[in-house]
Amino acid sequence: MLPRGRPRALGAAALLLLLLVIGFFLFRGDLDYERPRPRGTAAFDGDPPADPGGHNGSDCIPPRPRPPKCELLQVAIVCAGHNSSRDVITLVKSMLFYRKNPLHLHLVTDAVARNILETLFHMWMVPAVQISFYNADELKPQVSWIPNKHYSGLYGLMKLVLPSALPPDLARVIVLDTDVTFASNIAELWALFAHFSDKQVIGLVENQSDWYLGNLWRNHRPWPALGRGFNTGVILLRLDRLRQAGWEQMWKLTATRELLTLPATSLADQDIFNAIIKEHPWLVQPLPCVWNVQLSDHTLAERCYSEASDLKVIHWNSPKKLRVKNKHVESFRNLYLTFLEYDGNLLRRELFGCPRPPPPGAEQLQRALAQLDEEDACFEFRRQQLTVHRVHITFLPHKPPPPQPHDVTLVAQLSMDRMQMLEALCRHWPGPMSLALYLTDAEAQQFLRFVETSVVLSARQDVAYHVVYREGPLYPINQLRNVALAQALTPYVFLSDIDFLPAYSLYDYLRASIQQLELGSGRKAALVVPAFETLHYRFSFPSSKAELLALLDAGSLHTFRYHEWPRGHAPTDYARWREAQAPYHVQWAADYEPYVVVPRDCPRYDPRFAGFGWNKVAHVMELDAQSCHLPPAQAATVRVPHPPGIRAAGAAGGLRHPPAARPKPGHLPLPLQPHLS
Amino acid sequence: MLPRGRPRALGAAALLLLLLVIGFFLFRGDLDYERPRPRGTAAFDGDPPADPGGHNGSDCIPPRPRPPKCELLQVAIVCAGHNSSRDVITLVKSMLFYRKNPLHLHLVTDAVARNILETLFHMWMVPAVQISFYNADELKPQVSWIPNKHYSGLYGLMKLVLPSALPPDLARVIVLDTDVTFASNIAELWALFAHFSDKQVIGLVENQSDWYLGNLWRNHRPWPALGRGFNTGVILLRLDRLRQAGWEQMWKLTATRELLTLPATSLADQDIFNAIIKEHPWLVQPLPCVWNVQLSDHTLAERCYSEASDLKVIHWNSPKKLRVKNKHVESFRNLYLTFLEYDGNLLRRELFGCPRPPPPGAEQLQRALAQLDEEDACFEFRRQQLTVHRVHITFLPHKPPPPQPHDVTLVAQLSMDRMQMLEALCRHWPGPMSLALYLTDAEAQQFLRFVETSVVLSARQDVAYHVVYREGPLYPINQLRNVALAQALTPYVFLSDIDFLPAYSLYDYLRASIQQLELGSGRKAALVVPAFETLHYRFSFPSSKAELLALLDAGSLHTFRYHEWPRGHAPTDYARWREAQAPYHVQWAADYEPYVVVPRDCPRYDPRFAGFGWNKVAHVMELDAQSCHLPPAQAATVRVPHPPGIRAAGAAGGLRHPPAARPKPGHLPLPLQPHLS
Repeated sequence: MLPRGRPRALGAAALLLLLLVIGFFLFRGDLDYERPRPRGTAAFDGDPPADPGGHNGSDCIPPRPRPPKCELLQVAIVCAGHNSSRDVITLVKSMLFYRKNPLHLHLVTDAVARNILETLFHMWMVPAVQISFYNADELKPQVSWIPNKHYSGLYGLMKLVLPSALPPDLARVIVLDTDVTFASNIAELWALFAHFSDKQVIGLVENQSDWYLGNLWRNHRPWPALGRGFNTGVILLRLDRLRQAGWEQMWKLTATRELLTLPATSLADQDIFNAIIKEHPWLVQPLPCVWNVQLSDHTLAERCYSEASDLKVIHWNSPKKLRVKNKHVESFRNLYLTFLEYDGNLLRRELFGCPRPPPPGAEQLQRALAQLDEEDACFEFRRQQLTVHRVHITFLPHKPPPPQPHDVTLVAQLSMDRMQMLEALCRHWPGPMSLALYLTDAEAQQFLRFVETSVVLSARQDVAYHVVYREGPLYPINQLRNVALAQALTPYVFLSDIDFLPAYSLYDYLRASIQQLELGSGRKAALVVPAFETLHYRFSFPSSKAELLALLDAGSLHTFRYHEWPRGHAPTDYARWREAQAPYHVQWAADYEPYVVVPRDCPRYDPRFAGFGWNKVAHVMELDAQSCHLPPAQAATVRVPHPPGIRAAGAAGGLRHPPAARPKPGHLPLPLQPHLS
Repeated sequence: MLPRGRPRALGAAALLLLLLVIGFFLFRGDLDYERPRPRGTAAFDGDPPADPGGHNGSDCIPPRPRPPKCELLQVAIVCAGHNSSRDVITLVKSMLFYRKNPLHLHLVTDAVARNILETLFHMWMVPAVQISFYNADELKPQVSWIPNKHYSGLYGLMKLVLPSALPPDLARVIVLDTDVTFASNIAELWALFAHFSDKQVIGLVENQSDWYLGNLWRNHRPWPALGRGFNTGVILLRLDRLRQAGWEQMWKLTATRELLTLPATSLADQDIFNAIIKEHPWLVQPLPCVWNVQLSDHTLAERCYSEASDLKVIHWNSPKKLRVKNKHVESFRNLYLTFLEYDGNLLRRELFGCPRPPPPGAEQLQRALAQLDEEDACFEFRRQQLTVHRVHITFLPHKPPPPQPHDVTLVAQLSMDRMQMLEALCRHWPGPMSLALYLTDAEAQQFLRFVETSVVLSARQDVAYHVVYREGPLYPINQLRNVALAQALTPYVFLSDIDFLPAYSLYDYLRASIQQLELGSGRKAALVVPAFETLHYRFSFPSSKAELLALLDAGSLHTFRYHEWPRGHAPTDYARWREAQAPYHVQWAADYEPYVVVPRDCPRYDPRFAGFGWNKVAHVMELDAQSCHLPPAQAATVRVPHPPGIRAAGAAGGLRHPPAARPKPGHLPLPLQPHLS
């Protein structure tokens, strides 16, 4: 019988704080799915009840062309920044859910999006999906001369340069904005290439607003367009023909000419596409309206979907995104939420009937998994060791800290049940943090709303949140720690636990100590942060070592795990620490489990550990794990820093399974007096 | 700022207990989705690589016939018992996800399934879905004469009598087993009716095993079939032609004749269908294999899906269900898990393009929701009041308690974070319980695995679990209480909270008190169960009043909410209770919030309350709620029962949102000395 969880008891120090704050989040959080989301391009656009190509309404759906079985479909998306990276994943999930064909995704990204998406797709290992990245920054000079008022900025305009940016042998591509959601198999869209005449090079859905009619308000002067114009959220591009036709020259000429009389593009690439089509109407193949149902505020989309029961792609092309005013928006939101919260692990399913080489590493993994014996008592441990979790690094916007030689990043991991520790932690630790969160896809969205509605959390750009998606019944504590550790960007890291609140001065104290003790100069040493806990749940956080000692004497505080596992922290020598005025040397001993500050390039945690925590339950686990012949957790020789720092203790829980919320009073370990080894 | 949660702290008494047990669940629980699941009919069946109708392989898919837009599609399912009711919901979710047409479901159910499904569909309010129920028990005599060895029992055979059981004007119907999962739009299946010749009456997919070839083992003697025979997990029935052709006589004759030489049906209705088709092969229209991909152990299904990338319906037709040995089973499981865990609320989306009258109540609800002002500070409260939660009563098998005049049901509600209280509760309360669980669809599956892997919980058939599906940010505490209360089947109910552990003797004591005090004879009185709590997390549960008093004197126990809200329990008069040898009268006072035993027909809780709990957080909520002009919780005049009963206290939490796991020591209120009013 192996306890597989970490108990969910919470540091008492945070109680009142949270009591006052949580309600606020909850209240505001409900509207989460209505938060404004950024997008790639084309927003507010022009109209279409009248059907230019006879493709609207229910009649607009031509008999479904059957796309060639197993044909590799090409898709291009421009994506920049943290928020668009999240959007693109929801789009990709919807696309993968319905697809039956192998896909090649061409992602034009800035450095941030590339870092996020490359990591994610690498861990995701979706069969029959190829990914190529293109550097958006290199493409910037080609479009940066165009003045643009659209919120997508330069990145929106980049769709114009795809014919030259994508590989020269790529003949056809579907181009998508990041704010579209599939409700159907993308192969049906691909099959519409077959309807192109010899001259047609661009497939587009007509605009579903009156924008380009130019009558939305006085002095509204849109770019020229054919009728209501076309929306560029979904584009079929014949790249081969565009290159042949001298596309680059064509769009640059048109844009230059229009900019003689117009101050800037309002809708980025879409204005330019429309101006070109106005001039050369034979270039466009109008697509059925259901392939780009536009949910902007003044949308006429209802004329499309009230006829067609068969919507294919939803386009959240209002700057208000899910908050857009539309009497049917709830229904569209449900489709969006389906994929927003969809467990991406389920998309790792094979593509039957289209044999493709498995993604890198996947075959080996499959073989190893197949060799596991389900009857083995350690089966779940072994399986967890083999599990490759999807990792979404910097899930929220993040600014790396400016390089400083003695800076320290607080490193910790948590699951949903510890979310409410984050605000207190931010108040106690003003420095950079790298936090790994073990969440389901649905929980990641809750987390997002939680941060967005928190004044404290949303003000911090130096806290990096890395989502590790849940799979399996064990809490992969060391894999989580390693993700957080690998993403720390300062020379030093404080390896903490989410339940511990540092002393208010700890961040400054540690940086001073690192400098003073010359840790950077090749000395192999670590700083130990003494840990304390409280068994009382009404607790006033000590603001000095003197206050802390008073609480200790009054029995309101204990040294961490004093009752359960004194050996874990015995070498810290709390008696000596009481009296110490300067750092002192601590001798490592078996079972020592201190909280330490070490250089960022310290050894990684053993990822084979799962379900392990610094607490009683974890200890049971540890014993058990050892009987499975897993090695014990790493330890280090150590030093102790000086000023009192307090943590509200316990241990991060979070199980796919029956959550291990267990009766436990608040702990409150805290780091104190330092010393050199 | 309104705290919207109930803290997750846990009764300390349960700590060690749970520590030892949880790991076991987690370990076993992982395999949950492999649990054997019952089914409607046709299991282990016969074969088909060779293609009788040229319908297998990728070529087997005829060009998709477009089903008439908005045509009402008819679907019949036989469903009996608690487990099949859960299965049918997963099937229906998959069907609704892809459907574009209005549906009419014809459910042939026993009393249990009808009770569950009628409640569920009533609350679900899915647009453009009609439900009709048919009493399976009335149909039994028509098939009970047939000896049958298949695990689906009599219910499997009922598919034979559908032509007479369904309304006489119903001409066509799709008949589904409960263990199929849709991966496509059911209208495409419906459209295959168009392929029927004038003589054909039954559409079936060929069997994907060698069962009917009769060579699986020595002396294997299957019923007669055409080649590998057909599988009846998915059937298209031309009811009109069947009635005309004298179907009832036809199948009865065939069955009777075969039973002269065969001892019983092995595969229920499927044997009989196949025997008829063997005799009258012109009756059958073979369907493409993708419409019934059979995942039994010796399946030849791979020959179907390795060709077709376009699977339509998966059939878990092995008694092993998801545990079936199949090298691609992970991929199929992912599809199944998608719908198992899919948030059913998202299926409430409108069916565009097919105007239908909204389900009963839905229109009124929509109007009320539309009138809410999102800017109103009480918006979430008001919205929660209007929210209709889906309710799945008796989610797990349940045997109603035998009628006894003084019996008491413990009534409580909880969310995921209190799951681990259930075992302790079962140990402390040997009587019937009615528990409402506030869960997401995914959590409901975790809960199922939790119970299935618990020896203690799975041994109890007198505990009824009612799942109320989550929606919105507030914990609808009184709606939950009302669901649990409404499903209590004994004359009396003990209105408890999940964090409280009753004294071991409380159940017996309460029944004796009810009898002794003649509560049944029209006396308007209630029994108060005094509540205690502990602030210590190491706690040995008292086994007598003397032990309890000793703990109280030692400060290990307090009267419940002694520190936070003494008025809530002051009238219980604990000082008097200490000395009392007999029940005494308690005078109700403002703010009195005792735990009481009352007749089952007591007034319901005010469902307008949300996020309210018996704890500090809840109290803040209550104050806040009152400022929103919601009335306070109900109270009652009361009496007190006698022997010590202990509860491990706190309050059930559970939020869609950032969970309110908050530092809180274990409480441990307990009910003691009774008295009469």
